[in-house]
Amino acid sequence: MTDVAARAGVSVGTASKAINGRGQLRAATRERVLAAAAELGFQPNALARGLIAGRSYTVGVLTTDSFGRFTIPIMLGVEDALGAGEMSTLLCDGRGDPLREQHYVRTLLSRRVDGIVVTGRRLDPRPPIGDLPIPVVYVYTASASPDDLSVVSHDEQGAGLAVRHLMRTGRTHIAHVTGPERHLSARLRAAGARSTLAENGREFAAGGVLWGEWSEAWGRAAGEILIRSGAPFDAVFCGSDQIARGVADTLRESGFAIPDDVALIGFDNWDVMVEGCRPPLTTIDPNLTELGHVAARRLLSAIEGDPPEHGEIRLPCTLVIRQSSEAARPYEAPPAASPVRASSQHAES
Amino acid sequence: MTDVAARAGVSVGTASKAINGRGQLRAATRERVLAAAAELGFQPNALARGLIAGRSYTVGVLTTDSFGRFTIPIMLGVEDALGAGEMSTLLCDGRGDPLREQHYVRTLLSRRVDGIVVTGRRLDPRPPIGDLPIPVVYVYTASASPDDLSVVSHDEQGAGLAVRHLMRTGRTHIAHVTGPERHLSARLRAAGARSTLAENGREFAAGGVLWGEWSEAWGRAAGEILIRSGAPFDAVFCGSDQIARGVADTLRESGFAIPDDVALIGFDNWDVMVEGCRPPLTTIDPNLTELGHVAARRLLSAIEGDPPEHGEIRLPCTLVIRQSSEAARPYEAPPAASPVRASSQHAES
Repeated sequence: MTDVAARAGVSVGTASKAINGRGQLRAATRERVLAAAAELGFQPNALARGLIAGRSYTVGVLTTDSFGRFTIPIMLGVEDALGAGEMSTLLCDGRGDPLREQHYVRTLLSRRVDGIVVTGRRLDPRPPIGDLPIPVVYVYTASASPDDLSVVSHDEQGAGLAVRHLMRTGRTHIAHVTGPERHLSARLRAAGARSTLAENGREFAAGGVLWGEWSEAWGRAAGEILIRSGAPFDAVFCGSDQIARGVADTLRESGFAIPDDVALIGFDNWDVMVEGCRPPLTTIDPNLTELGHVAARRLLSAIEGDPPEHGEIRLPCTLVIRQSSEAARPYEAPPAASPVRASSQHAES
Repeated sequence: MTDVAARAGVSVGTASKAINGRGQLRAATRERVLAAAAELGFQPNALARGLIAGRSYTVGVLTTDSFGRFTIPIMLGVEDALGAGEMSTLLCDGRGDPLREQHYVRTLLSRRVDGIVVTGRRLDPRPPIGDLPIPVVYVYTASASPDDLSVVSHDEQGAGLAVRHLMRTGRTHIAHVTGPERHLSARLRAAGARSTLAENGREFAAGGVLWGEWSEAWGRAAGEILIRSGAPFDAVFCGSDQIARGVADTLRESGFAIPDDVALIGFDNWDVMVEGCRPPLTTIDPNLTELGHVAARRLLSAIEGDPPEHGEIRLPCTLVIRQSSEAARPYEAPPAASPVRASSQHAES
């Protein structure tokens, strides 16, 4: 400020008034000060301004996912909602270690963040980060406390979309291959698929859910199990895109045509998996960027003094149709009609 | 502070002295104040402390990669070097837009960060973010200005490792399939492979480099091109793991055994690609976490007043051997000796 004042040929008090837009000054003086400030690259001190306002205009993001692939789209949504540069984001990676996490919570509090977003790689409820004097919103991962606000994907609804799409396109024997039963997301996806089948008087093909791991290797093994079981199946709904890709490899290499013999649907809409799959994979998109966006908007409302919210907000998933499943082929179609396939990706919710 | 003083039964001045470790106080008084502070969850104000010290203990990370998969391991390295919670990280995502980036640079300056790490998804030199009053280090992406310090992977050396491994295991006709020639990383990898071949009086099989895209689809197409060319080849070094995975699919489905007929090496050591590949992929690891670690340590040195550094620090890549290439099979081995294969992953640099 002293340099700006010297360059503009005014007192420090006058320079301060001009820069902070306070006091009575002639327009020419104000302009001279602002020009000097610009020439010197003067930056108002956000730390000092935050102290005066009692706010830091900073939000903490605490992740357990080591900046993994679930965190990436969520962060994009958070950042969009916070507005480029209006609010800044302090990122902390707890790496699944409760002690490290509590250390970060203390760091964020000492840095006077206005609020905290907590995220992670698992839908399963987690212990709350503590009873803090600032607003906190959980996203993708849910807080185990009913007093907290969590924003999560509606995995049961997403699984229902997949099964309805398969039934609508004439599939009658739908198998389900998914991740470990101990993971909530695997259980929710299986439950959503099962109840949608039950509403139509059906159940899973091949004797029920094939639980396993979140990997291509498990998908390949499960494809073998399905084929060797001898049970009829004309569709496989998978709990993840990685699993679906493995199933696709085994089916193709065993002489099954996808989607003509077997339709295939994944879950996640993970670009490298759905594009690498042959054929490109129909999948359920949990809309992680939208999750991040909604969580950050709720956090901003709370920071600005709106009454605190609690409970779980479940946002709908979306069906993304690609070549591994057929587009609408009604039951009653005349035999002459050739099936219509989606030639490019389109979304349907 | 008022609450802490009241609870400890001392004046605000005494409480402040106890908490800040200043002044002459009896040990019992200091302990009473600290106990009261702990009971009340008192947090010293880092904003105010930063103002007094002239430091914010915050580092900005500016990425063009939208928190993509290159940024993730780099961020892990940066965070490790900064020490959990000692320094905090303000994350800004320029998304490849220069205006957005400049806006973020101003935001970081107004927040008084002690230094900035600039990262991105492309090795190609980029315009510097500006002549700033604080230290800046570029990582993975290089600054076009020789006055700046950039920490990058040594892609030529990495490509040399791949080619030497293939020659050492008896391969004589090595093809190269890679990404777009306009990308520096594709050119450096091709140059490193070419010069290592030339040192041994050889050149690329199949008429030279096959330039294309960074995708599995291109890898699959390039596999077809190699086979249809009729040129002999017993190894393919690929510019990325995704490309190698596509090449593997085409070769396998055309009846080539990997590694018996053709050895295959990728570049990146991207977990989902090397593990999904059949067989699991030998690859070159650019050690991104180490890059982030070194960049952050250099930044800390500069912040602490060490003389500024400039130029490019190139860190060596590492060869990671999996089943897609053979372990040492010397030229002069007796015909009876069966080739030795790596049964599990091990690194060799």
